[in-house]
Amino acid sequence: MEVVEKMIVSEQRSPKIFLSGSIRGGRQLLEIYRLMYHTLEKAGAEVLSWHVADSELEKVEMEMTEEEIYSRDMGLLVKSDALIAEVTVPSTGVGYEICRALVQEIPVLCLHKPDASVSAMVLGNPDPLIEVRAYPNETSLKQIIIDFVMDL
Amino acid sequence: MEVVEKMIVSEQRSPKIFLSGSIRGGRQLLEIYRLMYHTLEKAGAEVLSWHVADSELEKVEMEMTEEEIYSRDMGLLVKSDALIAEVTVPSTGVGYEICRALVQEIPVLCLHKPDASVSAMVLGNPDPLIEVRAYPNETSLKQIIIDFVMDL
Repeated sequence: MEVVEKMIVSEQRSPKIFLSGSIRGGRQLLEIYRLMYHTLEKAGAEVLSWHVADSELEKVEMEMTEEEIYSRDMGLLVKSDALIAEVTVPSTGVGYEICRALVQEIPVLCLHKPDASVSAMVLGNPDPLIEVRAYPNETSLKQIIIDFVMDL
Repeated sequence: MEVVEKMIVSEQRSPKIFLSGSIRGGRQLLEIYRLMYHTLEKAGAEVLSWHVADSELEKVEMEMTEEEIYSRDMGLLVKSDALIAEVTVPSTGVGYEICRALVQEIPVLCLHKPDASVSAMVLGNPDPLIEVRAYPNETSLKQIIIDFVMDL
């Protein structure tokens, strides 16, 4: 019983996060994804989908089939304790992953720049598991992420 | 019994379709969405989300809350027999709706221009309910839609 409790505590200290950002929708926010990744790692989280923040991702995925990419991403999502999505850049994959995470009943944090035109499927979503926040600057972005991880 | 059978036949003749296309992700393919809408109506389908093909949509939605838009779209999706999405323009909402339709276990047809960079969540999706087709021209687009509706 003690061992189980220790495992639970250890798991809580290092929550597994699925980081979701645009890939084929456009990589213009790659530096933000990298900042999110580093903030999460510093906050003690484990980012399972670290490849989203990888500048060499396109090269790696060129060697993979579409089915392999889908299978990798959905396999990681199933193992995740929460999903954090950057939703400023419209992305069909990000929308799909947000929905899958809610079906899986894990917390979802959606972050966007204040001037972004974010989908109503995100902004108007009544699911209590989803939280949507605008970040005016990088300091604010980091703080929102740290607070979210601490609450998991 | 005869009445029930007639109702079933009538329903099959007029399948309810959720047409999904980019709204806040960009309206550059509005004319394609309009063509899809008209093709569906001519094929005997009922397009529940006809607003996606409405050039005045932004004005209408400006009067609605985010929650009202979400609720309208998900309410229509629940009543739909199939979803047809145009996935050329990356859209978080379209990705979300594709996932919801698959969770609801209805057929999903995703259409895109041959040169589009389509998400692996669509192209690599192993769900037997999803079909993804590139259309080289409008004639081909119309034929794919008609064939899909006839098979419902």
